[in-house]
Amino acid sequence: MSITSRGSGPHVLRRLNASAVLTALRTGGPQRVADLMDRTGLTRPTVTQALTLLEKAGWISQSGVETTPRKGRPAQLVSFRASAGCLLGVDVGPHKAIVMITDLVGAGLAEVRVPTAAAGDGRALITLIADAVRHALDQAGRTQDEVYAVCIGSPGIADPENRTFRLAPSIPGWAELPLDVELGRMFRCPVLVENDVNLSVLAERWQGVATEAGTVMFVHWGSRIGAGIMVGGRLHRGVGGAAGEIGFIDLDETPPVVGGMGPFERVVGADAISRLGGDRFPDSGAVLRAAADGDPDALAAVDEVAARFARGLAPALLVLDPELVVIGGGVSRGGPPLLAALDRHLRPRTLVPPRLALSALGDRAGALGAIRACLDNLEATLADGL
Amino acid sequence: MSITSRGSGPHVLRRLNASAVLTALRTGGPQRVADLMDRTGLTRPTVTQALTLLEKAGWISQSGVETTPRKGRPAQLVSFRASAGCLLGVDVGPHKAIVMITDLVGAGLAEVRVPTAAAGDGRALITLIADAVRHALDQAGRTQDEVYAVCIGSPGIADPENRTFRLAPSIPGWAELPLDVELGRMFRCPVLVENDVNLSVLAERWQGVATEAGTVMFVHWGSRIGAGIMVGGRLHRGVGGAAGEIGFIDLDETPPVVGGMGPFERVVGADAISRLGGDRFPDSGAVLRAAADGDPDALAAVDEVAARFARGLAPALLVLDPELVVIGGGVSRGGPPLLAALDRHLRPRTLVPPRLALSALGDRAGALGAIRACLDNLEATLADGL
Repeated sequence: MSITSRGSGPHVLRRLNASAVLTALRTGGPQRVADLMDRTGLTRPTVTQALTLLEKAGWISQSGVETTPRKGRPAQLVSFRASAGCLLGVDVGPHKAIVMITDLVGAGLAEVRVPTAAAGDGRALITLIADAVRHALDQAGRTQDEVYAVCIGSPGIADPENRTFRLAPSIPGWAELPLDVELGRMFRCPVLVENDVNLSVLAERWQGVATEAGTVMFVHWGSRIGAGIMVGGRLHRGVGGAAGEIGFIDLDETPPVVGGMGPFERVVGADAISRLGGDRFPDSGAVLRAAADGDPDALAAVDEVAARFARGLAPALLVLDPELVVIGGGVSRGGPPLLAALDRHLRPRTLVPPRLALSALGDRAGALGAIRACLDNLEATLADGL
Repeated sequence: MSITSRGSGPHVLRRLNASAVLTALRTGGPQRVADLMDRTGLTRPTVTQALTLLEKAGWISQSGVETTPRKGRPAQLVSFRASAGCLLGVDVGPHKAIVMITDLVGAGLAEVRVPTAAAGDGRALITLIADAVRHALDQAGRTQDEVYAVCIGSPGIADPENRTFRLAPSIPGWAELPLDVELGRMFRCPVLVENDVNLSVLAERWQGVATEAGTVMFVHWGSRIGAGIMVGGRLHRGVGGAAGEIGFIDLDETPPVVGGMGPFERVVGADAISRLGGDRFPDSGAVLRAAADGDPDALAAVDEVAARFARGLAPALLVLDPELVVIGGGVSRGGPPLLAALDRHLRPRTLVPPRLALSALGDRAGALGAIRACLDNLEATLADGL
């Protein structure tokens, strides 16, 4: 239906064909014209015409000849020019920011981390991030003008229209900052904003443990609790951008918000684990490590918090019935014993117990997801300029 | 991208164009060739070629001339032949079944209701439904061979591959019946199965109160509780077909299943309302009617059940952040006072309070949704035969 709904005629067809060839090149590495014909189902003259268009736009290069020709004379190989520009992903958290630069297929060029806790206010934080971005661009050997898309992730509810975050109590001064003004003026490209846990689920589906899953829920389990949800392979943001805010689930008729935190995160977050562990353990990390070593007190604390977590997570699973739940965030360092306890407590509470997995991306999930969001934006707009 | 992924060449293009013209005809009533050119963006020769193909397949008719020609000689009007066949929707519940027959654009031809409570076992129920289907076909003046799609809805988890329902405790003998064998042999067309609450949300989005909503949750509130969910305009079934089973949300650490019923439906279902109303009211309907008349005891009961309902619904809303929640089922007869109490109790429990609405389709929602499912199936397959 697409060709009719977007108009028709040879011009539209040419752009669609060029876009199909471009996608094949972006996802398949250097290829011969014959390979592109196979992958797109287009004829040789059509592929050739598309390549002319793409070369004029600067997206491809004739990248040398095949090293092991199958028959006849060596064929010319065509490549997407991944180095024609770069992408910038920024994950801003209460303790640190991660700035990531990649080429136009998402291959890493530079990564910079800066502490954020001491920034104090929003303006200082912006200065700090802008410095880190310049530093990362230097490292990557790139300039601001070469950036094709920027995505900024952080806790809070993203407001993409106004390029800002609402309700981000964990980062003082961050909420309501107009990021297109503050950071966007550095660049000539689109500036995207997205909730950091939403970015984590994009990252897990891109290169983590969820690459096969259609409906997947990523649960960030740290001091705070939140979920990123993909349904049918697409990010589900909710009408107000607040989908997955499970930290505010109330199991016990407690006040809705205390110190910016919801009822569920107050009873299962890192601080609660620390309290459950008792005086023997300095923090939640110590409790989790001791449980992994078989310490009975620590194991009892982990079992109790898993029971509570299962109670709050079960409603979300009954609503969504996902293929996979990925557990990330600091508490996920509890590893297999934590996962096993969670699975045991979830089974009696769900009709179809989901597959559980630990995140494999660690604290880079948010920044990687920001790069994935840039790639999605790029893919949606690349063909527009043809 | 579709033209390349499905192959290419003039044959594929001809079918795509014919499909676009068919969609324009199905949704737009009788039209001139010029109208079809406007709506599809196709040229006159292409539209004419498509019409020839569609006429040969029996899908369209030249339906007479325009009554008020704009200029020149009157133009021929082309119509989709909605009467070329019919669709069959069946909603099977513990108390009654509704059989609905429509033409190929969903306009009603016949509707038959039969009581099901006395059927006793699965085989008797099938006989009863088959009789009702024959009766409805007679009423519509149609034969079994003219049915283009059948959809059967009921409580339980639909298993579309095996054309049966799992876990349907409210209808004795119904679960695991192979419906393609038992009912399907009456027809030469596809037999679809779908959870009845999933069908209700399809119906609300088709011709109820949710026609504008992208993400919408239909909550069936009767003796049992369940939700049908659409995300981005598509039904979300979940990996095991169990999405929306919120009747099993457990707020109070109670046994997961008692008499086939989940924890949440036990505390807010129709029976619970009846108990909350006390001895003065014979059943939940009487409590709801008295509350509408301002009776203080009944109002207190409605407020209490609304508070409980909000407590169980809030986690679902925090997960999905839907545009709209439609309340259906018998309890929805509580009307505006019930909705107001629900809204009041939900606000402090959600970050983005959703818009609430009462279902406008009554107990016909399931059967209407079954017709909508038939239409979706028809639309996906109509062009295959060209």
